[in-house]
Amino acid sequence: MHTYRSHTCADLNKDNVGETVRLSGWVHRVRDHGGILFIDLRDHFGVTQVLCDPDSPVFAEVEKVRSEWCIRIDGTVKARDEGLVNPKIPTGEVEVFVRDIEVLGKSDELPLMVFGDQEYPEETRLRYRYLDLRREKLQRNMTMRSDVVSSIRRRMWDKGFREYQTPIITASSPEGARDFLVPSRLHPGKFYALPQAPQQFKQLIMVSGFDKYFQIAPCFRDEDPRADRSPTDFYQLDMEMSFVTQQDVFDTISPVIAGVFEEFGGGKKVDAPAEWAQISYRDAALWYGTDKPDLRNPIKMQVVSEHFAGSGFAIFAKLLEQDGTEIRAIPAPTGGSRKFCDRMNAFAQKEGLPGMGYIFWREGADGMEAAGPLAKNIGPERTEAIRQQLGLGVGDAAFFLGGKPASFQRVAGKARDVIGEELNLTDKDRFAFAWIVDFPIYEQDEETGKIDFEHNPFSMPQGGMDALNGDPLKVLGFQYDLACNGYELVSGAIRNHKPEIMYKAFEIAGYGADEVNKRFGGMVNAFKYGAPPHGGCAAGIDRIVMLLAEEQNIREVIMFPMNQRAEDLMMDAPSEPTAEQLMELNLRVIPQE
Amino acid sequence: MHTYRSHTCADLNKDNVGETVRLSGWVHRVRDHGGILFIDLRDHFGVTQVLCDPDSPVFAEVEKVRSEWCIRIDGTVKARDEGLVNPKIPTGEVEVFVRDIEVLGKSDELPLMVFGDQEYPEETRLRYRYLDLRREKLQRNMTMRSDVVSSIRRRMWDKGFREYQTPIITASSPEGARDFLVPSRLHPGKFYALPQAPQQFKQLIMVSGFDKYFQIAPCFRDEDPRADRSPTDFYQLDMEMSFVTQQDVFDTISPVIAGVFEEFGGGKKVDAPAEWAQISYRDAALWYGTDKPDLRNPIKMQVVSEHFAGSGFAIFAKLLEQDGTEIRAIPAPTGGSRKFCDRMNAFAQKEGLPGMGYIFWREGADGMEAAGPLAKNIGPERTEAIRQQLGLGVGDAAFFLGGKPASFQRVAGKARDVIGEELNLTDKDRFAFAWIVDFPIYEQDEETGKIDFEHNPFSMPQGGMDALNGDPLKVLGFQYDLACNGYELVSGAIRNHKPEIMYKAFEIAGYGADEVNKRFGGMVNAFKYGAPPHGGCAAGIDRIVMLLAEEQNIREVIMFPMNQRAEDLMMDAPSEPTAEQLMELNLRVIPQE
Repeated sequence: MHTYRSHTCADLNKDNVGETVRLSGWVHRVRDHGGILFIDLRDHFGVTQVLCDPDSPVFAEVEKVRSEWCIRIDGTVKARDEGLVNPKIPTGEVEVFVRDIEVLGKSDELPLMVFGDQEYPEETRLRYRYLDLRREKLQRNMTMRSDVVSSIRRRMWDKGFREYQTPIITASSPEGARDFLVPSRLHPGKFYALPQAPQQFKQLIMVSGFDKYFQIAPCFRDEDPRADRSPTDFYQLDMEMSFVTQQDVFDTISPVIAGVFEEFGGGKKVDAPAEWAQISYRDAALWYGTDKPDLRNPIKMQVVSEHFAGSGFAIFAKLLEQDGTEIRAIPAPTGGSRKFCDRMNAFAQKEGLPGMGYIFWREGADGMEAAGPLAKNIGPERTEAIRQQLGLGVGDAAFFLGGKPASFQRVAGKARDVIGEELNLTDKDRFAFAWIVDFPIYEQDEETGKIDFEHNPFSMPQGGMDALNGDPLKVLGFQYDLACNGYELVSGAIRNHKPEIMYKAFEIAGYGADEVNKRFGGMVNAFKYGAPPHGGCAAGIDRIVMLLAEEQNIREVIMFPMNQRAEDLMMDAPSEPTAEQLMELNLRVIPQE
Repeated sequence: MHTYRSHTCADLNKDNVGETVRLSGWVHRVRDHGGILFIDLRDHFGVTQVLCDPDSPVFAEVEKVRSEWCIRIDGTVKARDEGLVNPKIPTGEVEVFVRDIEVLGKSDELPLMVFGDQEYPEETRLRYRYLDLRREKLQRNMTMRSDVVSSIRRRMWDKGFREYQTPIITASSPEGARDFLVPSRLHPGKFYALPQAPQQFKQLIMVSGFDKYFQIAPCFRDEDPRADRSPTDFYQLDMEMSFVTQQDVFDTISPVIAGVFEEFGGGKKVDAPAEWAQISYRDAALWYGTDKPDLRNPIKMQVVSEHFAGSGFAIFAKLLEQDGTEIRAIPAPTGGSRKFCDRMNAFAQKEGLPGMGYIFWREGADGMEAAGPLAKNIGPERTEAIRQQLGLGVGDAAFFLGGKPASFQRVAGKARDVIGEELNLTDKDRFAFAWIVDFPIYEQDEETGKIDFEHNPFSMPQGGMDALNGDPLKVLGFQYDLACNGYELVSGAIRNHKPEIMYKAFEIAGYGADEVNKRFGGMVNAFKYGAPPHGGCAAGIDRIVMLLAEEQNIREVIMFPMNQRAEDLMMDAPSEPTAEQLMELNLRVIPQE
């Protein structure tokens, strides 16, 4: 027989009754029922009940075992009495009577119980991660993460992509976030950097003629702590293709994403890629108040300025006299009660706005009537026009926000989310996707008037050089995000592969050719030797797994995460270097005051 | 029609004749045959001949294109005249007459030609890597590398392994090589390290109950320059299993390795795993002079001390009077000529030995006769006994080396390689594998007498605690390498998972419990909470691809390699940090004198 096991702890069933078997695993829990010891023996695959009574030659040994000891047992498979069958587990029909036992690994007293649902401080969970990982939820999350990544790989291969590894020790690339630096020992005073993303390398792979690239790529950013992200690194599905349009990228990646959500989404409805809307950045802002809308929520905001211009509601009427202002409505079907409307108004105030005006419609003495202070101020005609525009009726409500969109848009988006949630309009059993397209290339600083890149400086402007010769603030990019349930899941672009257009694009943002060559020299130089048109995207692996595993905290989907202070409590990182290490690197730590 | 292509440059054949098609790619080369322009248009997939004459509306445009411009053409597919068919390429039956052209990316004058076989200095090749990568060899090597890694993943999945990612920004782990350090901004004066290997993490994954782990893992070592390795990082197939013996690890990984070599070995013979010998470390040293023997070479060295003890060859006879000395023979079938023997003798001298004595057997006047000075010195009886032991005959030779094995073993191994090569005994069309097993756990420093780990401190000693209580230099480990064609392809061990045995093992090597806790605390602590027996191995991806691609230089199988001075010439790494970056990290560079 094998040294450690003839079967896993998920293998045995009625067919094995009478066999002598060998199992290895952890003591999940021990129960003593009148002198008979029942042990739930657990391994990665499942749990098998083993039992022992004083008839066993090793009863005295078995009595000693405690939770989370790792043991090997030999025994005889027996059918359980009918009343004791556990249909919830595959091995629930049988139990194993122990005839021999070997303790493979004892356990000290446990700082964290694997069995049961007790909650522990994150500090404890991270310090004893190897115990926390034995618990059912993390076993499930980690295997799901692994399976999601495997599935993505298979799907990308099936589409003719090859995975190419790009350097991890490389040059600093000023892409917005802060680099992690790595001092060079061979070149004193010089530093490498860990890549914030393989952006330049994947574009270089296209210039090198490889046509289709992907990588499950680690990305490194020295971020300040935030609950929903890792302070050091994250993984993305990074992909790039040559000789493609934006639509080609959508047609390639959409079925990959949809397929993964179908496969691991636990039966939730997954919108088919053919139904994924393409919403312009501008429309997304207007309709949803965000560029990553949650489309499980059917609410779509609308501009209703005309109904308030010159109306009796002085605040809005006056607002509208200023340039660049507008009034937007958030329709709230089924939200037609004063109580609900007041709660939403309070929500807006908590978010820093003066409040949200509202109208709601109810059954009155003479049929439908519009209620709320706003309705009174603007009168029945305008109120009715608004109702008709928004397609609302009895039992519904609408909320109103006014001003320059930038001043209220974010709160409007949040209000839309809350309204959708509270009114149960948001379909929780669905993954809803949409491409957000036509991002502006530039934005203008309101104070300084300075024009800078809105997002990614590497995107091809729609209209190319001609567009750049016009009003920069009107230039849109071939740049896109995929929104899913309120998160940005994918982000990408068709790249600006023409050096002359790239220099021009940077010039508009105030960067001279020297600066471009210095910052992105590796890539821009390459573009001077026959660069193909290319584009691609990157999808956040951690985020995808979080959505599929229904986790809010990124540390629930990473095997060995840092804590929020960017420390690994288990491995003791970061730590003090030795004097010798610092000397070799030619560095001195500046003493803290 | 698609914006860039209706077909790739490998798609068209006779069936497409008459069709209007669109192709995109690079101008591989242009030829002008009496006013007709022939362009080999190349993309990742292949080459298609396109042509243009003054009848084409875009002749003037086509005339302008130069090598490595990236272009899009529209044209009509025509059958080539029978005499002009090129059977070597899939598109060789057709050509495309150009009716429209768009230049997608021009090229400056080329520092490196993609077309042709011209060699360039490595400096040029690395600086313009994106051009070098367009060349056929690197296209082939990189796609092969990608396909090898994919194949490994599929094979590991099929065996029930899951890939789990381990941290890249982590703690310094003193495993022998030098760490790359990463200064922490949030914890001034503290540093992370990049992992030399995921050794501790994969063992922690086993302690966490995941049963089977693998990873295509980047490993980071701050190495001094050497031609056949990357100065910064390399990739390994890292795997680990719980509840296994050494043989289980062999049975798992052998078919994966053999399968990959079958799949990508270009038809060379691959020894079947069932035939892979298990050779003890001691025997490997004796028979082959190395622990990574090239078994394509059938030569096996033998101890022949008895034939020289007290013989007329005074040098050897005297040597044998000293403790720990022996005489070894390298049999050299078909090497029986004075010229060859003298050349081998000269080789040994060049390697720093006094020389190699030899005997060779030839047809003499009275049948077979032994020639060479050694034969005369020891006389016919001893000479014949040696011949019989080695199984040699007319036309063969044998070389002899004597002393303490450590003093000549390395050269003996090299001589064996050279003899095998020169006599054409080494079968070049074969991948020959063997497991080297039973590595000693400890070695003794000859000078100081100090006992230290021979190799990996994490291996389980054969015989466990009992063995450690005996003579440490006799303790063997459950530790193994896989040798292939003279390289170490895989290295692994059954791990020491019992804290008490681990502390004892370190104690013998002079490390107290405090030191163990400090260096490997993360792992050793985990072992105190029910650690399962586990083991695994790691296989070098770069090395596997080098063997399959028949490359000697690691930079031929890495997409964007560093040069030997650990610089990336294309991206300009490492480079000077900004003062702000240093300040944020609380570091000062010590000025160089």
